[in-house]
Amino acid sequence: MSKETTFNGIHRRSFCKATVTTAVLGSLTGVANAAARGKASLIKKGSVVLFQGDSITDAGRSRVDAAKANNHKAIGRGYSWVAAANMLTELPDHDLKIFNRGISGHKVHQLAGRWEKDCFSLKPDVLSILIGVNDIWHHLNGNYEGTVATYEADYRKLLKRTINFLPDVKLVICEPFVLRCGAVTEKWFPEFDKFRVAAKKISNEFKTHFVPFQSVFDQATTIAPPEHWAKDGVHPSSNGAALMAHFWLKSVLGS
Amino acid sequence: MSKETTFNGIHRRSFCKATVTTAVLGSLTGVANAAARGKASLIKKGSVVLFQGDSITDAGRSRVDAAKANNHKAIGRGYSWVAAANMLTELPDHDLKIFNRGISGHKVHQLAGRWEKDCFSLKPDVLSILIGVNDIWHHLNGNYEGTVATYEADYRKLLKRTINFLPDVKLVICEPFVLRCGAVTEKWFPEFDKFRVAAKKISNEFKTHFVPFQSVFDQATTIAPPEHWAKDGVHPSSNGAALMAHFWLKSVLGS
Repeated sequence: MSKETTFNGIHRRSFCKATVTTAVLGSLTGVANAAARGKASLIKKGSVVLFQGDSITDAGRSRVDAAKANNHKAIGRGYSWVAAANMLTELPDHDLKIFNRGISGHKVHQLAGRWEKDCFSLKPDVLSILIGVNDIWHHLNGNYEGTVATYEADYRKLLKRTINFLPDVKLVICEPFVLRCGAVTEKWFPEFDKFRVAAKKISNEFKTHFVPFQSVFDQATTIAPPEHWAKDGVHPSSNGAALMAHFWLKSVLGS
Repeated sequence: MSKETTFNGIHRRSFCKATVTTAVLGSLTGVANAAARGKASLIKKGSVVLFQGDSITDAGRSRVDAAKANNHKAIGRGYSWVAAANMLTELPDHDLKIFNRGISGHKVHQLAGRWEKDCFSLKPDVLSILIGVNDIWHHLNGNYEGTVATYEADYRKLLKRTINFLPDVKLVICEPFVLRCGAVTEKWFPEFDKFRVAAKKISNEFKTHFVPFQSVFDQATTIAPPEHWAKDGVHPSSNGAALMAHFWLKSVLGS
């Protein structure tokens, strides 16, 4: 494939993405409007909210303080903390208990390996999961044999187990995303897109809320370069985290 | 006044503030709900949005790029940019034009001195102003003779002039705020509270939107220390900026 073809390929993809992005963000606003018309927020008085995932969720959280709800060291410096801080400030009478148990480097099967301790024991009412980037990254690096089929199968198994143990839990699946800079090279594509599709498929199967982070960042890169949102293409800057929190809250609070 | 009395005074104030905070944040949610029920967002298709103020708004914005709408260097690194980025990403079909013309160190009369160039020439549809901290700070430092009466009179004059020139402009008055740390010592109080009251009074007189930043930060300091939100008590951290953007958007977008 010539460079020219690849270049055009990217342009064609960008065009499609822009159309899809507007539609997805529009539908997200639709969710918010529906919520405002009476569809309840996922967050209720007394809700236990758990953020789960990899380094993007981990974001330097303190292990020592992990058992403390609503603690800024325990929740880290990422989108989870921005979302938590906004919720806790906005809903002071809701007596929320917010935890973060993301661990840097983790893939779906590693979440499964610590699910009793880092999910079930906390009995979350709302469980938000952002996972997938290591499932492809470690494969590309030659350090993991799993494929997108492994990802999808492991994710499905994890959610089945979760709703068996927590039948009333409200699930939020976050779309895995990357920015086209830093560690994220052309060799990630089109394979990475399949992980996004798998996450959306799982979300549809389990009728979960879905936060379209890739669409959000695709749109955001029309107003500032990819590096502004995540210098290495994977780990969001403070601006990237604030953007994620905004769209997470729009989806989950419906406002 | 003994230290003990002062200490108790602070505790009594904290108690009152907590009650007021919940009420104010509740009413803000009320605004959002009202908006969701049909009250329109201030932001329309094609809106020109202008952020005005001092260093909190300035936040390192590029003067060279100042004429460019929606430019992340021109909008700086503060709450204005977080709010702008969220709006531009959420409303890609709105063709918004967002500018920031905050200047570090400015007081109301200095906004007035550059209002033709830095406000009227841009013909904003939505004008958001956050001003006041220098009006007291420079007085406390002995570098400015103005008082809260000066602030109120200058602010009223500026808004009268603004609506004379831009009769359809939607005004957003942001409450001046401080965190109790860094440069903000006990000698700021109770004088500082009078500036907040004056801003609210002006907002009521001109029937503007009002963003209760002091209430937001009072609540936020129940979940993380003041330094987390603004190390020097005046200039917000990235977390402080994200929190401000969240509540600014709740008030202005009604969601």
